[in-house]
Amino acid sequence: MSDKSLNDYRFFDPHETVRKTAFELYESVRNLPIISPHGHVDARVLAENKPFPDPAELIIIPDHYIYRMLYSQGIPLESLGVPTQDGTVVEKDHRKIWQIFADHFYLFAGTPTGVWLSHEVAEVFGIEEKLESANAMRVYDRIAEKLQTKEFLPRALFERFRLEVLTTTDAPGDTLEYHKTLQKSGMKGRVVPCFRPDPVVNIKSTGWRNAIRDLSRESGVEVKSYKKYIAALEKRREFFKSMGAVSTDQGVESPYAHKLSPIRAEAIFKNALSGKATEKESQEFTANMLMEMARMSVEDGLVMQIHAGAMRNHNVAVFKRFGLDKGGDIPVQTEYTRNMHELLNAFGNNPGFTVVVFTLDESTYSRELAPLAGHYPAMKLGASWWFHDSIQGMTRYRERVLETAGVYNTVGFTDDTRAFLSIPARHDLARRIDSNYLAGQVARHIINDKEAAVIIKDLAYGLAKKSYKL
Amino acid sequence: MSDKSLNDYRFFDPHETVRKTAFELYESVRNLPIISPHGHVDARVLAENKPFPDPAELIIIPDHYIYRMLYSQGIPLESLGVPTQDGTVVEKDHRKIWQIFADHFYLFAGTPTGVWLSHEVAEVFGIEEKLESANAMRVYDRIAEKLQTKEFLPRALFERFRLEVLTTTDAPGDTLEYHKTLQKSGMKGRVVPCFRPDPVVNIKSTGWRNAIRDLSRESGVEVKSYKKYIAALEKRREFFKSMGAVSTDQGVESPYAHKLSPIRAEAIFKNALSGKATEKESQEFTANMLMEMARMSVEDGLVMQIHAGAMRNHNVAVFKRFGLDKGGDIPVQTEYTRNMHELLNAFGNNPGFTVVVFTLDESTYSRELAPLAGHYPAMKLGASWWFHDSIQGMTRYRERVLETAGVYNTVGFTDDTRAFLSIPARHDLARRIDSNYLAGQVARHIINDKEAAVIIKDLAYGLAKKSYKL
Amino acid sequence: MSDKSLNDYRFFDPHETVRKTAFELYESVRNLPIISPHGHVDARVLAENKPFPDPAELIIIPDHYIYRMLYSQGIPLESLGVPTQDGTVVEKDHRKIWQIFADHFYLFAGTPTGVWLSHEVAEVFGIEEKLESANAMRVYDRIAEKLQTKEFLPRALFERFRLEVLTTTDAPGDTLEYHKTLQKSGMKGRVVPCFRPDPVVNIKSTGWRNAIRDLSRESGVEVKSYKKYIAALEKRREFFKSMGAVSTDQGVESPYAHKLSPIRAEAIFKNALSGKATEKESQEFTANMLMEMARMSVEDGLVMQIHAGAMRNHNVAVFKRFGLDKGGDIPVQTEYTRNMHELLNAFGNNPGFTVVVFTLDESTYSRELAPLAGHYPAMKLGASWWFHDSIQGMTRYRERVLETAGVYNTVGFTDDTRAFLSIPARHDLARRIDSNYLAGQVARHIINDKEAAVIIKDLAYGLAKKSYKL
Repeated sequence: MSDKSLNDYRFFDPHETVRKTAFELYESVRNLPIISPHGHVDARVLAENKPFPDPAELIIIPDHYIYRMLYSQGIPLESLGVPTQDGTVVEKDHRKIWQIFADHFYLFAGTPTGVWLSHEVAEVFGIEEKLESANAMRVYDRIAEKLQTKEFLPRALFERFRLEVLTTTDAPGDTLEYHKTLQKSGMKGRVVPCFRPDPVVNIKSTGWRNAIRDLSRESGVEVKSYKKYIAALEKRREFFKSMGAVSTDQGVESPYAHKLSPIRAEAIFKNALSGKATEKESQEFTANMLMEMARMSVEDGLVMQIHAGAMRNHNVAVFKRFGLDKGGDIPVQTEYTRNMHELLNAFGNNPGFTVVVFTLDESTYSRELAPLAGHYPAMKLGASWWFHDSIQGMTRYRERVLETAGVYNTVGFTDDTRAFLSIPARHDLARRIDSNYLAGQVARHIINDKEAAVIIKDLAYGLAKKSYKL
Repeated sequence: MSDKSLNDYRFFDPHETVRKTAFELYESVRNLPIISPHGHVDARVLAENKPFPDPAELIIIPDHYIYRMLYSQGIPLESLGVPTQDGTVVEKDHRKIWQIFADHFYLFAGTPTGVWLSHEVAEVFGIEEKLESANAMRVYDRIAEKLQTKEFLPRALFERFRLEVLTTTDAPGDTLEYHKTLQKSGMKGRVVPCFRPDPVVNIKSTGWRNAIRDLSRESGVEVKSYKKYIAALEKRREFFKSMGAVSTDQGVESPYAHKLSPIRAEAIFKNALSGKATEKESQEFTANMLMEMARMSVEDGLVMQIHAGAMRNHNVAVFKRFGLDKGGDIPVQTEYTRNMHELLNAFGNNPGFTVVVFTLDESTYSRELAPLAGHYPAMKLGASWWFHDSIQGMTRYRERVLETAGVYNTVGFTDDTRAFLSIPARHDLARRIDSNYLAGQVARHIINDKEAAVIIKDLAYGLAKKSYKL
Repeated sequence: MSDKSLNDYRFFDPHETVRKTAFELYESVRNLPIISPHGHVDARVLAENKPFPDPAELIIIPDHYIYRMLYSQGIPLESLGVPTQDGTVVEKDHRKIWQIFADHFYLFAGTPTGVWLSHEVAEVFGIEEKLESANAMRVYDRIAEKLQTKEFLPRALFERFRLEVLTTTDAPGDTLEYHKTLQKSGMKGRVVPCFRPDPVVNIKSTGWRNAIRDLSRESGVEVKSYKKYIAALEKRREFFKSMGAVSTDQGVESPYAHKLSPIRAEAIFKNALSGKATEKESQEFTANMLMEMARMSVEDGLVMQIHAGAMRNHNVAVFKRFGLDKGGDIPVQTEYTRNMHELLNAFGNNPGFTVVVFTLDESTYSRELAPLAGHYPAMKLGASWWFHDSIQGMTRYRERVLETAGVYNTVGFTDDTRAFLSIPARHDLARRIDSNYLAGQVARHIINDKEAAVIIKDLAYGLAKKSYKL
């Protein structure tokens, strides 16, 4: 790419025929509306619709993709203004933070973070120079200035981004007040919640008791037993559905699913309430709740999502000082064939049920996930996730999944982002990679151009809309 | 590919030089005879040499590659005429079944099944239009008509396909009567049996007792003890050999091999006879039988094959209604370095012994299998198998295996198919992919064109012939 | 490649633009000095600076890359002159050995060994014909003749190879006498030792007692207890450092690290001294020594290297007759996220500490290693190692690692070779593959040509120099 702008043909194969076809396919979907069926943008941002803060607070401080790379090169998180939980003072001068970032922007060469940031700077802010030490303050000022204009208010960007649906992720005890505000706001696009029970499922996590308290309050069911707990969850799912929710999501280290007897479930729940539950009981409880959530999805029609395979908070010192989601979640080997056996046997033959599975273990793409999704009517494969939501990562996903699962047992692209401004960058990248992948298939006469023209629209838009019942 | 025909350059790299070299290499092997050293075509079909039934019964109803994909999209197997074991009525109108298939043929875009089917329709039946809803009945009629001609009788096709050797897969208690018929028939090509002891090895399977009964009857050894059991197997191997067999095959979930003491083996066998064997004993017994089969191969010279890594009948409901091999066999993580340690130490240094290993876990290609095959004289790597017998799958296999194992520790292509009509399609695809792989090596000056010209012939024909002693 | 010479554009993508850029990048680093920060060349060779022996003794007999491939095809190691430990007579006629090698040189088509050998023959010896049966003796004579000239003395080649730093690998009890000789020799390049404690860490290995005896002698500390053992190791590290060492290295089957209590460590050490230690205790002790070596590195600044994932001496018969490192070391599944948790939590946040991790399990590249290195300041990723130090292997490494870890959490190229003459071939290949990888990124507009020009220099030279503090 030249120093000054984004090349139109970026990320496409250099072979002329492939590049040309890729570009045509991309052009046919470039401006399609965006369905973002799973992510972590805060509904409050859109509900309040206040100007975004300064560039550092918008782009660097909340984004673990960015500061984990800087941290890996010895730059303290404190110097990047990442807020602490233990009172340690952090850098307050956001210009200084931005300068550090610009000084080290070369670290992101060839990374998806680098690609997304370049897109944001050029396409969202219209700044045609590559960030570097020398222009850091100039770029900062230009972004800061734009953020104060009404064209850069969250809802204005929402429209400009052609967002048709944006899904947030919310705890069972969440009031969804900002979603209510948004529904009354007359805004064109949809912002829908997603039911994420993790805070009330992870019985050993520090916030569990508070999460149960919130669940009781919001459900109107006093959660004093496992039975009441299930009843409260069902009520909240009903409420989420009434607020537009179409899906749930569970983040689990292992996708092991196993139904406990009511007596055993009750006993573990009692132990959790009295603070005596063990690590093993917590794992059993999670396995049971995968079964319960699947059962509820069969009943209420919410699409079930499973994000498996991250060991959370690997870096204990970073976790203690900075809290959750600070770049220290590291993937582990993950097993699906045996672990999901009980769940798929109980519910997987039901074509009305949908369970979308995501992984961080690429060795499972062709070995386990594609064969499972290529057989069970209920199972679909989520997009290449997190570390694999990258140029090579998305390409590997297509290469390993599509031959066995086919296109139509996948669910299109999911950005899964906290960074609102990166949404168009991520979808644009995915649309480019998919266009390039299909163009390669056309050039090799594996599919023809008519087939490619249909498939690219499904990958970019149709599959997400259909799979998530939007 | 255009709607009407198969492109001559299909599956080749679009780069002109690579494509040209690939095509030349392919042309040099395109018409070589086919050695099919392992597969599941029924000898009876060729022995009886009756016209094939209608298109649905020939192509859809017996092919789990096809109906598992349709099933994954919510189409009931009953509506596809897949026969049931529990008396459930299934669709009898084969035109309806064919129409469903045509309506959903788009699901196979980019899949190997799609590629094979397109080849079958175009090359075997000479039908130059792509199957779709609108032409479904016309295509059905044209295929049905051809199937009634003498050019489409099984043996006529066998010759037309240039089949030099076709290997079937047969139980120890099989009489091989159809092989006898074929040997007397004066047919040009060879149809040879392969000794598959699984029915008598899997002591917990429902059919075990019947399989032992058949083994006793055919061997003339009353199998009342482990010792007799081994004697009976040895007799049957001798018989298979006399009938032209050159190989054995075992399908195992894990390739763990471990010799039991005669006392322990006898004890487990007794438990099996009295129906008391446990799951763990069954695993021990399988591990022991890998050792025993290897020992017998060292003695009688039959090439040993191991197909490892599938969890069979994952979908219990489908298994109960429809039986074995209905698309519900799902790969699991597989380990070879430790599991095959005892077997390779006992027999692996013997250059007269050949054990061909297949996997469904691609992560083992470069990590375990290529290093093992690149060291032990006896070990060879089977072709990319099942879900990996695809364009990308075969390419990944070449990329991960050849640098460490070299070409000559692999055994060429194995189609492993039940679908007789797909045999030429599968070999043609493999020859194309290998040609393309080698052309890429030539274009990168890794090998020269003379080397490529030799290697492609070995991959397409020579290695299978030599490795299987044909 | 033509029969007669190496093509200038070898190993580059055939697409003209990519090839051109790759060649330009390669040209910019082709003649940079070589930093070889980890390997197994014997310092004695350079200290004595005697002519190399004949071609077979130089190239075939000591190189397990070569003879394991010949062995896998049924050629006895004895016929290749590989020395035995049990008195078995081996081939003494080195011309015969060379002829066997030439007769089977086709086995190496497409393997890295083949690529390195072709480079050696053409570039080091200036022989412009491809080795084959017919020219075997002529090539032998020409190489033999050159080896007698002063231009082919080890130190002359060292200079000609532009070696700036060559690291050897040495036991704690090694006197480093040849390093002393070299330091006094006035030689331009540096030859530095690397501290490899394996002989004194593997308490179940046959040579352990002798290694402890050497450690006592050289450290001047009588190693009668675990405490003394640690003190002796610290003294030897100090000595190695004084001799120019910048790094340590541990070869472990599993990277599991766990600190034992002093009492437990002492107890295991006592058991080892009295020959009673168990296999499990040996594993505990290794895990503890990973922690101890990391602690020492934090204190003395030596870069810590971990080579994990090989099951040593898989082939017991070959091991018994021929000893260690004879091609029978086979990779196993390896886990880093959990196994290195304790080590990284104890020391990984220290930016002054460097731990370089190598793997033989490619499935960990994107799943575990890149995410860990992309977060912990201390952790860096070693180059693609051993079976993966190949054209496709290095490419896969770049594709799976760089998007998540970035360029600057890797350490450049490591040849890790015993074969002195293959050093330039290996670095040349790595420089070509990296140039080609970056050219592909430029052609796809992922990075620009200025970025590529900087990165290639870092990959070829800068990162090794910086990471190993050279």
